[in-house]
Amino acid sequence: MANLPSIPKGTRDFSPEITAKRNYIFDTIKNVFRKYAFRQLETPAMEKLSTLTGKYGEEGDKLLFKILNSGNFLKKVSDTELKERNTAKLAHLVAEKGLRYDLTVPFARYVVQHQNEITFPFRRFQIQPVWRADRPQKGRYREFYQCDADIIGSNSLLNELEIVQMIDEIFTKLNLKVTVKINNRKLLAGIAERIGFPEKLTEMTVAIDKLDKTGQEKVFEELRQAGFSDDALSLLEPILNISGSYDDQMQCIEKFLGETENGIEGIKETEKLFSYINSFKFNNSIQLDLTLARGLNYYTGAIFEVVSDEIQIGSICGGGRYDDLTGIFGLKNVSGVGISFGADRIFDVLENLKRFPENTSSQVKIMFVNFGEKEEKYCLPVLKKLRKKNISAEIYPDSVKMKKQMKYANNYNIPYVALAGETEIKNNKFTLKDMLTGDQKSVSHNELIEILSSEK
Amino acid sequence: MANLPSIPKGTRDFSPEITAKRNYIFDTIKNVFRKYAFRQLETPAMEKLSTLTGKYGEEGDKLLFKILNSGNFLKKVSDTELKERNTAKLAHLVAEKGLRYDLTVPFARYVVQHQNEITFPFRRFQIQPVWRADRPQKGRYREFYQCDADIIGSNSLLNELEIVQMIDEIFTKLNLKVTVKINNRKLLAGIAERIGFPEKLTEMTVAIDKLDKTGQEKVFEELRQAGFSDDALSLLEPILNISGSYDDQMQCIEKFLGETENGIEGIKETEKLFSYINSFKFNNSIQLDLTLARGLNYYTGAIFEVVSDEIQIGSICGGGRYDDLTGIFGLKNVSGVGISFGADRIFDVLENLKRFPENTSSQVKIMFVNFGEKEEKYCLPVLKKLRKKNISAEIYPDSVKMKKQMKYANNYNIPYVALAGETEIKNNKFTLKDMLTGDQKSVSHNELIEILSSEK
Repeated sequence: MANLPSIPKGTRDFSPEITAKRNYIFDTIKNVFRKYAFRQLETPAMEKLSTLTGKYGEEGDKLLFKILNSGNFLKKVSDTELKERNTAKLAHLVAEKGLRYDLTVPFARYVVQHQNEITFPFRRFQIQPVWRADRPQKGRYREFYQCDADIIGSNSLLNELEIVQMIDEIFTKLNLKVTVKINNRKLLAGIAERIGFPEKLTEMTVAIDKLDKTGQEKVFEELRQAGFSDDALSLLEPILNISGSYDDQMQCIEKFLGETENGIEGIKETEKLFSYINSFKFNNSIQLDLTLARGLNYYTGAIFEVVSDEIQIGSICGGGRYDDLTGIFGLKNVSGVGISFGADRIFDVLENLKRFPENTSSQVKIMFVNFGEKEEKYCLPVLKKLRKKNISAEIYPDSVKMKKQMKYANNYNIPYVALAGETEIKNNKFTLKDMLTGDQKSVSHNELIEILSSEK
Repeated sequence: MANLPSIPKGTRDFSPEITAKRNYIFDTIKNVFRKYAFRQLETPAMEKLSTLTGKYGEEGDKLLFKILNSGNFLKKVSDTELKERNTAKLAHLVAEKGLRYDLTVPFARYVVQHQNEITFPFRRFQIQPVWRADRPQKGRYREFYQCDADIIGSNSLLNELEIVQMIDEIFTKLNLKVTVKINNRKLLAGIAERIGFPEKLTEMTVAIDKLDKTGQEKVFEELRQAGFSDDALSLLEPILNISGSYDDQMQCIEKFLGETENGIEGIKETEKLFSYINSFKFNNSIQLDLTLARGLNYYTGAIFEVVSDEIQIGSICGGGRYDDLTGIFGLKNVSGVGISFGADRIFDVLENLKRFPENTSSQVKIMFVNFGEKEEKYCLPVLKKLRKKNISAEIYPDSVKMKKQMKYANNYNIPYVALAGETEIKNNKFTLKDMLTGDQKSVSHNELIEILSSEK
């Protein structure tokens, strides 16, 4: 075949096998979200560009997919403007809508738009695709799913505890060992204050965020370029290298921060959260990590990040407390805390460690071989009975060569095949073949149904 | 609040309550699809415009949402072209991608692209949103979900039987009474031939498709304008008014069609399909309807349409056999048959008839009232135990006024509320309130867990 059709770069088809594995991840996450009383929200793929623009920084704006207005899309463009070819400016005249870039901004927009119908605190989860016009590269796609849960309209640190419990439970259910790193943006603000650059908190966190990936030298280089003095950096250094138990770290940072307002608040919140955490048993390690920064600057309190203990792949889940997310849409003073699971990275971890359960890909338990019209008629009522018992089953639709039919069953990992030729029909039996062992036995209709029912 | 943010017209937010109801529909359909051995496929929201354009007729092309190219989107446009302002032509220069318009074309594209990896017959289902730049109106949206199942790569009429069985089972599970109308495009082709206009089959089916909505007079008017003679129409009239049992109708149409090639094939296929159907019991009525046409002209064999017996709302499900869907992408002679469930219409029917199960909206079984720090500590381990038993539960995160907390439980339809103040804690008990009856009783921790477990 010369010209096979294809899909846009950075996008993916998910074959039935892959979709089944992805559903295993989504279902695991969803079930825990639901158990923790989060309610599912869905928002449209398209948002007004006025909703999206300016929310993700200048870089983010460039990565928004814009929808060309229908019909005469040049209606609002003058000849002079056309001639100028200033596409950044023209884009907003020819496109009013864009594809959502994340689930956070649409959530904030939803909360503000529906503030009078929503009962707060509002616990919502949302699992939907998002789109970014990023340069496609290994592990980075232009369409990917986010799995977010947020509690909005409550300052209570109990909500942070719930988030940590959910993280622990979800990764336990996924059979993965992880470390949950926790920090607090107020501690980081206190640090920026103590080293003399309170106004450069964002620059500091953006730089520190890369500590894991690039090392201290590069981070310091970035900080120097951002205007931090050498004195500031030598004050910062011991904090970046802090280690030891939770108590050791807390003692050290408490001493360092002293009486800064942010410092006092940050210490209080962190102690309270860890007193909650320490009253429960977790399957995974929950750690205070004072170098955890998270680049996004809407975070204002606790921040979380999860890494695999078994494979190096970066953060597979992250989130935190924000105090003014809805402020961008005019609703002030609504605090929330949220978490986002990275389905694609979790997929890669499970695939790499071969931790997907064996039965995700094959739901179909049995295939009836098709030997012709008479044999078909013999099989159809049994097929119906199996399905009535909620067993996924099929009959090969055409009476083609046996080999082809067996290959079909094999390719789709169907564990059993039922055969009924002249002899079986005469004896009112089926030959049941176990595709894994190759064993064959003669069974009655009821035996067949019983064997399949017990296999479920 | 003056300027609430909003979403693009024709799109919708789905609140948790609505999402839960929609999930009930999707899950019901999905579970039956899976039981019938259909495997889930997902394709990207964006397709290349070259994949989509020309597949839905001229009208359809206009309804495609196009994605503005990133960066300098005028790169390929000359000054002369710009000046011309021919937006239909320019659209393809500034946009290379579009949002999928249905699930059928992406499915055909997928099958051709992956033909060497797929084991045929390929039974796939797909439940994803599609986008159309239609004028928004009641019941018509610019983003909506389609639920499609197709078997491709087999001519067997057993596949048509499977489709009919699935339709019957899905609507039975949804607690709706429907009529499944069946016809065959070859019979329609035979009719066009017999009335002397074999080359005008498409015009004839497009017109007949409106018979239910507009009546015979309008249909004949349309046919006359399309060039059908009065003789042809008087030949057609008795066929459009055919009635009686399956046998009566078949006798009548067989006589009418005589020895036309399409007629003979159509009769043979219809008889075979109904001989399959008549060997099973169905909960819903399965009827031959010779006036069923379905506008889409890629259908070549059996066609299906489902209407509610209880409410007039038009077709809620439809599909049929196509012989050359993948031909548009260069893979010839692959026959398939498929069905599409209209989730939005089914939602409206269930809502109108109040047939949604009562428990879709509330998954959360119990809320713990928050009286303060000490009481919180008393509740948290029990909350954890409940969740361990897979019971969806929550604690109100802040120790605000009791009234506000009870209102929260009430607004979210949470059936039980647990209270623990000083007295309860002293006696190691909870006060459990049934929110429906208002009854309160004092229970031990274990009793609480038992009551909630048995309620699941």
